[in-house]
Amino acid sequence: MSDVDMQQLDTYFTEERDRHIEEYREFLRIPSVSALPAHREDITRAAEWVANALRLAGVPTVEILKTQGHPVVYGAWPAEQPGIPTLLLYAHYDTQPADPFHEWTTPPFEPTIRDGRMYARGASDDKGNLFLTIKVVEAYTKLYGRPPIGLIFLFEGEEEIGSPNLRALILEQKERLRADAVMSADSVMWANDVPSLVLGTKGLIALQIDIRGAESDLHSGLHGGLAPNPLNALTMMLGSMWSLDGKVQIEGFYDEVRPLREQERAEIAAVPFDEADYARSIGITTPVGEAGFGPLERNWARPTLDINGIWGGFQGEGSKTVIAREAHAKITCRLAPDQVPSHVIAAIEKHIYTHCPAGITVSVQQTAGSSSAFAIAPTHPVLHVAREVLGDSYHREPLMIRVGGTLPVADYFQKDLGQDIVFLAWSMPDEHLHGPDEFFRLENFDRGLRVYADVFERLSEKWNEG
Amino acid sequence: MSDVDMQQLDTYFTEERDRHIEEYREFLRIPSVSALPAHREDITRAAEWVANALRLAGVPTVEILKTQGHPVVYGAWPAEQPGIPTLLLYAHYDTQPADPFHEWTTPPFEPTIRDGRMYARGASDDKGNLFLTIKVVEAYTKLYGRPPIGLIFLFEGEEEIGSPNLRALILEQKERLRADAVMSADSVMWANDVPSLVLGTKGLIALQIDIRGAESDLHSGLHGGLAPNPLNALTMMLGSMWSLDGKVQIEGFYDEVRPLREQERAEIAAVPFDEADYARSIGITTPVGEAGFGPLERNWARPTLDINGIWGGFQGEGSKTVIAREAHAKITCRLAPDQVPSHVIAAIEKHIYTHCPAGITVSVQQTAGSSSAFAIAPTHPVLHVAREVLGDSYHREPLMIRVGGTLPVADYFQKDLGQDIVFLAWSMPDEHLHGPDEFFRLENFDRGLRVYADVFERLSEKWNEG
Repeated sequence: MSDVDMQQLDTYFTEERDRHIEEYREFLRIPSVSALPAHREDITRAAEWVANALRLAGVPTVEILKTQGHPVVYGAWPAEQPGIPTLLLYAHYDTQPADPFHEWTTPPFEPTIRDGRMYARGASDDKGNLFLTIKVVEAYTKLYGRPPIGLIFLFEGEEEIGSPNLRALILEQKERLRADAVMSADSVMWANDVPSLVLGTKGLIALQIDIRGAESDLHSGLHGGLAPNPLNALTMMLGSMWSLDGKVQIEGFYDEVRPLREQERAEIAAVPFDEADYARSIGITTPVGEAGFGPLERNWARPTLDINGIWGGFQGEGSKTVIAREAHAKITCRLAPDQVPSHVIAAIEKHIYTHCPAGITVSVQQTAGSSSAFAIAPTHPVLHVAREVLGDSYHREPLMIRVGGTLPVADYFQKDLGQDIVFLAWSMPDEHLHGPDEFFRLENFDRGLRVYADVFERLSEKWNEG
Repeated sequence: MSDVDMQQLDTYFTEERDRHIEEYREFLRIPSVSALPAHREDITRAAEWVANALRLAGVPTVEILKTQGHPVVYGAWPAEQPGIPTLLLYAHYDTQPADPFHEWTTPPFEPTIRDGRMYARGASDDKGNLFLTIKVVEAYTKLYGRPPIGLIFLFEGEEEIGSPNLRALILEQKERLRADAVMSADSVMWANDVPSLVLGTKGLIALQIDIRGAESDLHSGLHGGLAPNPLNALTMMLGSMWSLDGKVQIEGFYDEVRPLREQERAEIAAVPFDEADYARSIGITTPVGEAGFGPLERNWARPTLDINGIWGGFQGEGSKTVIAREAHAKITCRLAPDQVPSHVIAAIEKHIYTHCPAGITVSVQQTAGSSSAFAIAPTHPVLHVAREVLGDSYHREPLMIRVGGTLPVADYFQKDLGQDIVFLAWSMPDEHLHGPDEFFRLENFDRGLRVYADVFERLSEKWNEG
């Protein structure tokens, strides 16, 4: 496509803007709250609305796929000829609940524009972004008969409840989800004026440790120096897991961690992070963590181990000279790229058993499914294209960031489809995602259409270059 | 007193037995439960009953002394002449609550004799023993006009609620409590057929540790590697307090502990303790504790450090990736002789502060008053007399035992009156003290009268010998 064509798309988006905004509002009016059974029919309506929008955009194959929970909207428009890539687009049409309703300035499902922002539940997370991808396809269809690349659409209705049925569907539909690349239109940018791309997210394992000593609670006078103390034991097993300089002391814990390359450290260092501001925001004096790494390196690229809960024995007023019969703790690890969850679990278990004093029985069990960390090569062709397009659109180089949290979909696409996911969307961290007065900036509505269109275009041109 | 006189007392006790049992029943019928406000008048009645019994026994000075709580019954019968010792007798007239009532075979305040045992709340702890001391004095009065030694009676009404007002009273009445020795008629023998004397009890300190990190609970994805984790920190501070071989690792913890002399170790080794039986009784495979010491040495003469309660963060089902803002623990130490409570507290605090990771705020506070351990010299003249009398009565040498628990009264008498307390009473560990169907063996009712009488007698003869 020539520059003239990009201009043509631009003109089209401007001319169609009012209609687009009206359709976007229509989509937002459907209260597709996945967590609440009362909204089951709204979920169905939203899925049908999306499927219909895909059909109107010209997508030749559109289906609503049933799952054990809420349906997935599937669409496919194969590439015109071999050598042209096919991109799988992921997004979700469900939303978070909207309560507390009284904290909204205007009702959450009556979309309202104020100061160039669309206020509604789901406006930013994720209906706005999902809607933009469909409108870009529609634009190509109307102007040129079809999009310049092959496309597969996978729009789920359970993202806000942890995507419990997505993995089974991906495995079941593996053949029909075969693509050259995967892009997620569900993501958060670093800041409204600071474009960014996600190079990685962290993995997760979750364990509960249950410890027993004697068969009942005992008096510490009668049984002190004789009976095993599960609370003492628990702190011995857990407290030995860290050094005072923040290093995890579990043997082998860091063995598989992919070391940060110099370029990655430079990229992370380029991301603005004010330690004093951050510390103030959570009421501490300075961020703390593993020695030898900067704060964002620790949050994004180094594994962490946190006790999330601990309990046992007497918790009332005053003192009680009891030796409790049992103690419990819950721990989670955020994993770095290349750490194998089962290996980390085994290393933790070994640490626990080797630090277990005599007379104590321990059981360790997983309390949630585990996920590997996700990392995409900075040289990935789609990421490279996204970087170029964002750079042109913002007139500045995007930050290459990571996420300290865990996005299981990234792990699914990597494990089950062999594809690294590129996150590209226009939600901003200040847009009250999940809270009252969620909004989406309409300037990003406009920018998103153009950037997605440009990404499609450049992918069609550049795929075989690199 | 000659053997003939002892025979005379013996005959007297036999002749008066029915009356004694009837009066004992009368005392037991008063539900003097110190913990329950509903029994306030019963406490008063019991104090008056005891004061009256002392008067009827001929004690010239008898007073009911008010405290901030329940009253103390005080009595004094000075020695006849200089050189004859005065013994302070301690006991308590209050009882534990009696619920659950339905678990009693006969009602707790309707004393009933079955199989030579008196069943009633307080029968063993401590009304039986208290009653015996009064009846011995009465016997001496009736037969010889007065007891052979000086006596001071201190019978309190708050032992079962921790003697909250006893220390103040002792300090206030210091002059009137001046005695040559102190004996407690509140104690438990090793077993019904195994006489024993207490050489020591343990001290106690109780602390609560409160830890804070950030000002609110945080998401471990957004804040992992950045925010301090109070739960991690708490286990680091506490878990480093023990080695796997059971030694407390706090610097200076054992410094002041009085080492066990060879003779003491031999005496402790002479006390029968079946490790397998004990382990089975609490559902473990073997007793555990500090390396290098036997089980009774650990329980009786070595300091211990136990976490009694710990809590913080998420304790529900499944997992939650939270970094909690606070964590808490309660700990107590049982102290060995010569350990100074304030020194041990300081050592623990120092350990906590030196093991505190960055970003964590700690507060340590005492949750109860502290007590030093109590130890009496095996050569103490009253202990020596008690040992002889018990040996003669049982035809076997009494075991010289210790108590792993803490008896604050021992600490008070030692600190405030400069007197080591001799424990001599006929409660047995199997007599359901504090539980339903508490009982007292009437064979010990008979034996107790004779042994106390013999102790008084020998004290009057032997005081100046040793």
